[in-house]
Amino acid sequence: MEVFRAVADALQFSAEKMKKNGLFATDRFFCDVYAFEPGQSQGGHRHAGSDKIYFVLQGTGDFQVDAERRTLGAGSVVFCGAGSEHAVSNPGPERLALLVFMAPPPR
Amino acid sequence: MEVFRAVADALQFSAEKMKKNGLFATDRFFCDVYAFEPGQSQGGHRHAGSDKIYFVLQGTGDFQVDAERRTLGAGSVVFCGAGSEHAVSNPGPERLALLVFMAPPPR
Repeated sequence: MEVFRAVADALQFSAEKMKKNGLFATDRFFCDVYAFEPGQSQGGHRHAGSDKIYFVLQGTGDFQVDAERRTLGAGSVVFCGAGSEHAVSNPGPERLALLVFMAPPPR
Repeated sequence: MEVFRAVADALQFSAEKMKKNGLFATDRFFCDVYAFEPGQSQGGHRHAGSDKIYFVLQGTGDFQVDAERRTLGAGSVVFCGAGSEHAVSNPGPERLALLVFMAPPPR
């Protein structure tokens, strides 16, 4: 596995749906870059045994974690604890890119 | 634990040594913001059972992972696998800030 990566080199968008671009993955965690065109989303879901972090790299995201909702821009960090229901959507007009960590990776 | 955080609110520097600012911590991982004034460093060290990621938020860092060395700026990501020797220093002239993720947290 490459030790040094650049988000800009990994970041790819898809016109069809939000795109997950992998940076690093081990048995202990994964680190991805998620890319959302305006209007794209990741619907509400849960990971029973894994914690997740979203870090906003660019654009604006509408985030839901259980009953809490927030619209956040670059530099914001969202914690989705194991078992929480979480969702993200891009209200636009900019593209949205998130650095995502999950530990452990889903089995 | 707060679900939504802003890196800018957590980011504090110390004139004495590099400063670790906690964002989130669970039994599965921690997520911190590390802050280095020019000339400050985190010396070479290893975590036997944990993987670590550094993401460069601002400034420039000199990174070492085992025998590999690289000088990297904002948007770069560094993987320090379990057992690897890793170190960071800030050559300046800007302040260096890193988003840091480790899974699992050191015991």
